[in-house]
Amino acid sequence: MIDPWDVEEVDYERLTEEFGIRPIDEKVRELLPRRFPLLDRGIVFGHRDYDSFLKDYNDGKLVSVLSGMMPSGRMHLGHKTVVDQLVFYQQEMDVKVYVPIADLEAHHARNMDLDRAHRIAVEEYVLNYAALGLDLDPDRCEIYLQSERKTVQRMALLLAGRLTWNTVKNTYGFTGETNMGHAFAPIVQAADILHPQEIEGPHRVLVPVGVDQDPHLRLTRDIAEKEDLIKPASTYHRFMTGLTGGKMSSSKPNTAIFLTDDPETAKEKVWNAKTGGGATLEEHREHGGNPDECVVYELMVYHLADRIGGDEKLREIRKKCREGDIICGECKRMVGEALAEILEELERRREDVRDELPDLLSQHPDAPEVPEDW
Amino acid sequence: MIDPWDVEEVDYERLTEEFGIRPIDEKVRELLPRRFPLLDRGIVFGHRDYDSFLKDYNDGKLVSVLSGMMPSGRMHLGHKTVVDQLVFYQQEMDVKVYVPIADLEAHHARNMDLDRAHRIAVEEYVLNYAALGLDLDPDRCEIYLQSERKTVQRMALLLAGRLTWNTVKNTYGFTGETNMGHAFAPIVQAADILHPQEIEGPHRVLVPVGVDQDPHLRLTRDIAEKEDLIKPASTYHRFMTGLTGGKMSSSKPNTAIFLTDDPETAKEKVWNAKTGGGATLEEHREHGGNPDECVVYELMVYHLADRIGGDEKLREIRKKCREGDIICGECKRMVGEALAEILEELERRREDVRDELPDLLSQHPDAPEVPEDW
Repeated sequence: MIDPWDVEEVDYERLTEEFGIRPIDEKVRELLPRRFPLLDRGIVFGHRDYDSFLKDYNDGKLVSVLSGMMPSGRMHLGHKTVVDQLVFYQQEMDVKVYVPIADLEAHHARNMDLDRAHRIAVEEYVLNYAALGLDLDPDRCEIYLQSERKTVQRMALLLAGRLTWNTVKNTYGFTGETNMGHAFAPIVQAADILHPQEIEGPHRVLVPVGVDQDPHLRLTRDIAEKEDLIKPASTYHRFMTGLTGGKMSSSKPNTAIFLTDDPETAKEKVWNAKTGGGATLEEHREHGGNPDECVVYELMVYHLADRIGGDEKLREIRKKCREGDIICGECKRMVGEALAEILEELERRREDVRDELPDLLSQHPDAPEVPEDW
Repeated sequence: MIDPWDVEEVDYERLTEEFGIRPIDEKVRELLPRRFPLLDRGIVFGHRDYDSFLKDYNDGKLVSVLSGMMPSGRMHLGHKTVVDQLVFYQQEMDVKVYVPIADLEAHHARNMDLDRAHRIAVEEYVLNYAALGLDLDPDRCEIYLQSERKTVQRMALLLAGRLTWNTVKNTYGFTGETNMGHAFAPIVQAADILHPQEIEGPHRVLVPVGVDQDPHLRLTRDIAEKEDLIKPASTYHRFMTGLTGGKMSSSKPNTAIFLTDDPETAKEKVWNAKTGGGATLEEHREHGGNPDECVVYELMVYHLADRIGGDEKLREIRKKCREGDIICGECKRMVGEALAEILEELERRREDVRDELPDLLSQHPDAPEVPEDW
């Protein structure tokens, strides 16, 4: 649970001391050519070499952004956080975006056949990425399958010499029963991250990820160093809390708002969500609620701020909640309405982009085709 | 040490019971379209599905042969045994031959940089393969680098899901400190063996190997079964004994006759070789020698029989040795002379083929180029 104006709550000291993740402070934010709300609100809170990435960008040097998609399950609001970042770098900073589709990993680690992975990638992920604003023009964005991109495959087979079994085992918790395709997935991912330098020459590649992905970034940075490549930069965002309080997960529909949920379903999920409100209405009125423990408030901060009145409105709601001047039902109604609007818009945009998608994807040499029944 | 007319000495029962390797008996040999001395003399002594391979061949079905080269060190007579088989299948049976160059394995398992591996592959291996009679016409033979052949790389990354770490660890004796490139080498090899079926459709691929390679064939056959591919056939040949009695090894020059040894060096090595002769000349004359313990006799059987008078002559020498009627010096002189002839011929053929090699290799899309100083 986060407080967008109190990011010091995050244990930066531990992250810095133990792992070397640095906070995104005012000095870093000043390097951005324009305001980036996800940073301002502390959702993207930490980084490695993000300042170097931004300096290179400001110096007119080549930089790129990369973030993979795992084609399994349905996209939810948690996934949207990454796409929002890709869209920002592409649309507001004109940086090229690489989007590997981790079909090899889905196949080996999640036992999914490739055809199914490709269908999910297109129907569920690529379509939503485009609807969320990512321009699929192949000059501005490269979407590719791990199973099709030769440069990545060759790099993976070569980079593999840089890691021992013990290293991947300890980093990823593999066992003797782990299949070698799964065990190789981190190496293919490292090749994903490093291959833009093979294609376009040495440059800083930014990888926006959830903070749980940092071990992978550390490993890739180590490999980059050994290979005389430029270490990838990374930013770290927090995970959204699930609607019921635990983890937001595709496999538990009640924990997540899916991008393809119909508005009524979404409203209902919000209505049943865990809030920071008092145990009873009377208690709430008397002692106030706790927005830092409230999933409904978190939804506002992550995805709805600009729609409901911006930072000022957030500050107001926060204050009112603490003082018991606004009750959970009001927040839920407001969030439900705003979410419904977003989901309706997304649905319209998906329909807009659907017809162009086959042609757009066909311009990406290693991308999946749209399914035959498109 | 072998006796070409007493192949029952080999513990076939154990090989059959424990591993399922079957002896190459008369029934199998009858399937061959013509006589194959390496089989007749028991040098190639066992197989898996070789009879199926030959039946498919006799039925006019597509079959192919594959044997990889490890580009490290110098080629010696032990390596020639494999090449002789490739040449037989290509020249006498018109079967297409695939020759993977295991540069990825040399890189990861032997710490060799790729450029050096490619130089050795061309200068030492490909040149000698051609000199030994392999036709490099790309319709009859495909020479390729593991690091360049996309089909193999993709297959390896997909097949990897069929094996656990425990399986490769136990089969190859890997440890936690084994690098993942090395750990992946058996999977790339399996892809080498199976990829002709991906290129040309399902068919039986024969892999002639030393018997120590059987674990690898078993593993590849298991993968083939899971992938609904036709299991590779394999034949097994024995290793030549080193000249000094132990293993023949590129890294111990006195144990091996190299294909690029000059004739005088070769003669000297033969002169110093371990024989099956008596401890003293008197003892030898009285009790005879033991050709089954004689490296010099083994050289005759493996490589010189046709040059010194065929099976009849071998039989005669064998008998005379046992009875003390021929002494080691005589055998050594004969073998030295015959070897010198072979090495001189090889040198001439290397010079003949050298000029064509750049053009020939350039017709193999994934083969190494000849070095710049060719």
